[in-house]
Amino acid sequence: MFFLIGLGLGDCKDITVKGLEIIRKCDKVYLESYTSILTCGVQALEEFYGKELTVADRDLVEQGADEILGEAKESDVALLVVGDPFGATTHTDLILRAKEKHIEVKCIHNASILSAVGCCGLQLYSFGETVSIPFWSDTWKPDSFFEKICNNYRNNLHTLCLLDIKVKEPTLESMTKKKKVYMDPRFMSVKEAAIQLLEILKSSDSTVIDEKCLCIGLARVGSETQQIVACSLSKMASVDLGEPLHSLIVVGPKLHPLEDEYLQQFKIV
Amino acid sequence: MFFLIGLGLGDCKDITVKGLEIIRKCDKVYLESYTSILTCGVQALEEFYGKELTVADRDLVEQGADEILGEAKESDVALLVVGDPFGATTHTDLILRAKEKHIEVKCIHNASILSAVGCCGLQLYSFGETVSIPFWSDTWKPDSFFEKICNNYRNNLHTLCLLDIKVKEPTLESMTKKKKVYMDPRFMSVKEAAIQLLEILKSSDSTVIDEKCLCIGLARVGSETQQIVACSLSKMASVDLGEPLHSLIVVGPKLHPLEDEYLQQFKIV
Repeated sequence: MFFLIGLGLGDCKDITVKGLEIIRKCDKVYLESYTSILTCGVQALEEFYGKELTVADRDLVEQGADEILGEAKESDVALLVVGDPFGATTHTDLILRAKEKHIEVKCIHNASILSAVGCCGLQLYSFGETVSIPFWSDTWKPDSFFEKICNNYRNNLHTLCLLDIKVKEPTLESMTKKKKVYMDPRFMSVKEAAIQLLEILKSSDSTVIDEKCLCIGLARVGSETQQIVACSLSKMASVDLGEPLHSLIVVGPKLHPLEDEYLQQFKIV
Repeated sequence: MFFLIGLGLGDCKDITVKGLEIIRKCDKVYLESYTSILTCGVQALEEFYGKELTVADRDLVEQGADEILGEAKESDVALLVVGDPFGATTHTDLILRAKEKHIEVKCIHNASILSAVGCCGLQLYSFGETVSIPFWSDTWKPDSFFEKICNNYRNNLHTLCLLDIKVKEPTLESMTKKKKVYMDPRFMSVKEAAIQLLEILKSSDSTVIDEKCLCIGLARVGSETQQIVACSLSKMASVDLGEPLHSLIVVGPKLHPLEDEYLQQFKIV
């Protein structure tokens, strides 16, 4: 059987009781390591679960899916995923591949940033489409997320911006070589995201949002060191929220009084 | 200290390890019982937690907040909430009231229908604004959610429709009386929701969605008896998914190939 188990957002104790019982019974346990991370390290997880974990990078999950699922045909295999198992397309794809091979699949849900973001006091029902902000390179500066943020804003909705993660990405030079060289992991900060948004604003003639629009920066949601700040977009470009993961919210134009009252505790000028 | 603890969506073992440890240490534990329900009963929860639970209805949480928070000033009090603690406005309000009284608050996140709904294979990033569909009465038939569904659809986004719950609602006749008489609990089914949507369509001149649009009905997400069906809106009006809770998705006009492939397993004609 193949289990996809959500780990939640904070540390080892954010797993559900059901999820933990399954891990302890499984023959092999993988930890998906490239769509998100927990604030605690792999070793802390292994000690708490009492199980050895095999760290699964993108190559293993995407190209090595047959290997993982082959094992799941004969024995009980779990893939652990930060947040909820359905947060990333790649996991949905894995379930489909398992069903094709007639392998039974069971998913254990957990907290996802998509709902945990409610901790800033904004109503989850007042969010529009979620967007992803990718790292820019010198030659590749996609900005399609900007139009989505504007569209949400026009509809009086907040936008949750998920910020890019680059884990075990091969260097450009080694892409075509046999022996890949990997870059250091990178996690986009709210500061970097705000700077990219301001750069788009400068070259855009959009009048929907401007540098004064209210934003919320969130870091390490659900962990002991969680941090939340609310300020203008231009101010956010100089905010340092420390260690990853970060998320950014572009707040809609009209706040519900309760949202406004709740946000006061996070405001900086 | 005041703890708000998410219970997730299925049964007693969907609580996180962290949440369970806190419950077992608390002096008093309330179970919020009117914004959502678990498929297992209160007794199963009490046995698993090894704690007596005080069922908290709307009156107690909203009018009795001072009482609950007064206890939290002197001792450790937990309020257990199905899903994630930030799923309902009333809990955010409670945190604000606690902070006013200088009571420390800690929230333990868990799975929410807003992200667990990914189990149907639709990408969570392709959902627009979430709507609530309320029970209609003979004299009160609000339909503002319909325009939001159409707006999402126009933007090529799916809509998650949360379906109404009526728990411990006083009868109209007893509203003004001292001794309130309560109605039986009601939970809107996907069938009832589809019928209401079809009724709105009949009297609307909207051409955005019609009775042939693809919908997904979900029941008891995250539990052992979870059920998912995908069919047209008109077909959904005759689908019986059994026990609550139900949710309905109005699918956007264009599916990603992976979404389409995943949905095939749930299709009925």
